[in-house]
Amino acid sequence: MLSRDEMEAALRKLGAERYHNLHKFHKLLHGGKLNKGQVQAWALNRYYYQIIIPVKDTALMSNMRDPDLRRVWIQRVLDHDGSSAGEGGIERWLKLTDGLGLDRELVKSTDALLPGTRFAVDSYITYVKEHSVLEGMTSSLTELFAPSIHRERIAGMLENYDFIHDDIMVYFKQRLNEAPRDAEHVLELALTWPKSRAEQQGVIDSLIYKLDCLWAQQDALYNAYVDGHIPPGAFVPEDFDDRPRFN
Amino acid sequence: MLSRDEMEAALRKLGAERYHNLHKFHKLLHGGKLNKGQVQAWALNRYYYQIIIPVKDTALMSNMRDPDLRRVWIQRVLDHDGSSAGEGGIERWLKLTDGLGLDRELVKSTDALLPGTRFAVDSYITYVKEHSVLEGMTSSLTELFAPSIHRERIAGMLENYDFIHDDIMVYFKQRLNEAPRDAEHVLELALTWPKSRAEQQGVIDSLIYKLDCLWAQQDALYNAYVDGHIPPGAFVPEDFDDRPRFN
Repeated sequence: MLSRDEMEAALRKLGAERYHNLHKFHKLLHGGKLNKGQVQAWALNRYYYQIIIPVKDTALMSNMRDPDLRRVWIQRVLDHDGSSAGEGGIERWLKLTDGLGLDRELVKSTDALLPGTRFAVDSYITYVKEHSVLEGMTSSLTELFAPSIHRERIAGMLENYDFIHDDIMVYFKQRLNEAPRDAEHVLELALTWPKSRAEQQGVIDSLIYKLDCLWAQQDALYNAYVDGHIPPGAFVPEDFDDRPRFN
Repeated sequence: MLSRDEMEAALRKLGAERYHNLHKFHKLLHGGKLNKGQVQAWALNRYYYQIIIPVKDTALMSNMRDPDLRRVWIQRVLDHDGSSAGEGGIERWLKLTDGLGLDRELVKSTDALLPGTRFAVDSYITYVKEHSVLEGMTSSLTELFAPSIHRERIAGMLENYDFIHDDIMVYFKQRLNEAPRDAEHVLELALTWPKSRAEQQGVIDSLIYKLDCLWAQQDALYNAYVDGHIPPGAFVPEDFDDRPRFN
């Protein structure tokens, strides 16, 4: 078996090599290199990820037989759905899409998603249903790497886009509080729960899966809205023809 | 389609004809006709139903795409699991099994269950996974009929058994507060959500399913602990040979 330090190092190395802050779409996004329509496309597609998170978390909880574990995990569902209407992470994401001038009904319909977004995100539900509770939990280890990307994103997007204002970035500011708490709990489980090298590998593989899931979403965005190959039925920004070209 | 009143009458009629308070095992239980070992067997088996409720509810929530719906439903999970360790309905059920002198580890292991209990209860998880969100929700309409059985049970068991005390009946007292709130919400959904006769029938069938699920648990108890056919591996009360005979 890997030692605790080796295991943590292996997980952090995966983040350093594969987290989606390394994707060229994210670099363009944070660096202020996209036009408004491309930022809209990102927000509209990422909305689907937001609404699937509680679906994934409740599917995972339904595999848990230990009330103590569910009692910790339920906080994530409450964070995303909110304790009352108009609260929670999903609602905060809609403040961003509103602020970007997207029609709320179009966003909520999820009709204009990229198929690549839908398939990648839906795979996350299937993943947690079909894997062990431990692997279902540790697939969320990407949250270890989220705070730095959130900070980068808040600063970069506020600085670089005149259509991004402080009050529509509330989602990311809130996640700066929530994600470290969630990530620490799961990291501790990842380091202490496995009782064999095979279980450790399951944890490592779950993080690789999730990094792939996030990366594939960036790939779909880049292909459609940077390279310009928008699939039939997907969102077409008004300023699509004026988008910046990088090839 | 059935009118609102016809629909409500159809649902209440099912309860009046099929709810498990009509089962002869329940009548013996409430009427003080069982010995301690038979009451232990009931509490030990019913524990499995208690721990599966949040599993069923989170599986159901993972089929919900509407945060508003999840936000209402999550209260049930919090009720059963509690907001912190040592709270919640599962913990309150363990106070009952403790009070009845059952070994907590044996109860929590679920190793000594009747197979009939396990199959009936597990079917509830499968049911909500494989049916519509509406049917998954309305299968809990049995809660409409729960408060009267809880009141009957508290009074009857306190009066009739010298081994039952007020402080171990906390589960039922708490459910007197929770169940009516839950049942009213689901009844309203059952009466307003269906847009076709077929959807109404789905609701009716879901209640029939759930009534069967509860009835089957009573059948398993009666067969094993009254008629005396305990399956291999299941809990055998110390006073089993001294149990009262009714045939």
